[in-house]
Amino acid sequence: MPSINSAHILILATDGYERSELRVPLDELQKRGARVTVASIKEGSIKSWDKTDWGDSVDVDLLARDVDVNQFDALVLPGGQINPDKLRVDSDAMRVISEFLRSGKVVAAICHAPWLLIEADALRGRRATSYWSIKTDVKNAGANWQDETVVTDQGIITSRSPEDLNAFIDKIVEEVQEGRHERRVA
Amino acid sequence: MPSINSAHILILATDGYERSELRVPLDELQKRGARVTVASIKEGSIKSWDKTDWGDSVDVDLLARDVDVNQFDALVLPGGQINPDKLRVDSDAMRVISEFLRSGKVVAAICHAPWLLIEADALRGRRATSYWSIKTDVKNAGANWQDETVVTDQGIITSRSPEDLNAFIDKIVEEVQEGRHERRVA
Repeated sequence: MPSINSAHILILATDGYERSELRVPLDELQKRGARVTVASIKEGSIKSWDKTDWGDSVDVDLLARDVDVNQFDALVLPGGQINPDKLRVDSDAMRVISEFLRSGKVVAAICHAPWLLIEADALRGRRATSYWSIKTDVKNAGANWQDETVVTDQGIITSRSPEDLNAFIDKIVEEVQEGRHERRVA
Repeated sequence: MPSINSAHILILATDGYERSELRVPLDELQKRGARVTVASIKEGSIKSWDKTDWGDSVDVDLLARDVDVNQFDALVLPGGQINPDKLRVDSDAMRVISEFLRSGKVVAAICHAPWLLIEADALRGRRATSYWSIKTDVKNAGANWQDETVVTDQGIITSRSPEDLNAFIDKIVEEVQEGRHERRVA
């Protein structure tokens, strides 16, 4: 069983990510021993959305266009209303997401981030959850939508909202340790 | 042919509507003689989103729960990333939208507002457009997505972005004057 201590996890986000949905996985996964890298579609730093307004920022370690999926064990996608709406029209971001999905590695999306899984057409025939407002989009993308804190289907992990963060992070650790590589067919 | 002078138009929005997408239709439709009422899911005023941050506010004339669809000739839905995401989970807002759609009256949605037509399942088999980021959601909802400034299908008018506002407003006026009532089957 691979240890979370030797895992390298990529978080992909841009301006308008929901603050807790990046900050809590970043801190918690590091605390459990993982190496965590933050990638974005812009250099410098990206600005969070903190519930009802812009919040603090986080430094960007790597540009999406420079991401080599082979160097990572899992991809974490924070939500927010603005962040995934910007990422889904960015070809570098979608290249990263699609390569992670094809690789069979763990892909975890919370809140509004399942829009990115819709954009990659990764939910057809899969069980998934999301923030309630995008439930119809998730269902129209072919998913079997579940009202649960965390749903996993073949290494694709989804959660509904910041209140599900503990279950979301625990499931990321569990799936990385199970080593979900090469399990999905391209 | 009904005149735009005798028309009563409802704009439905909440916090986070894209400023120009409410302000320009409100001003232009009034200038052309229409009576325009702003409805929302909260009392008082609603705060715009002005491209990259919160902008000014507009007064709310009517609560969604008190809207009598019989009193209006058309419904206009501004976009923004935040506004339709809030409205689509509000039962009063969705009751208003669904009743307009069933009535056969003109329903016009711009930018991210077609999410509300998705929520009402009104796009199946219809030609429509939207902001580019939600194109996949619109297609997954059964629409034939078009990259055009304005698309009309049986009184449902859609446009892509603030740059399409002139064509959007002209089409609303044209469709109201043609009197698109009772043309859709419930």
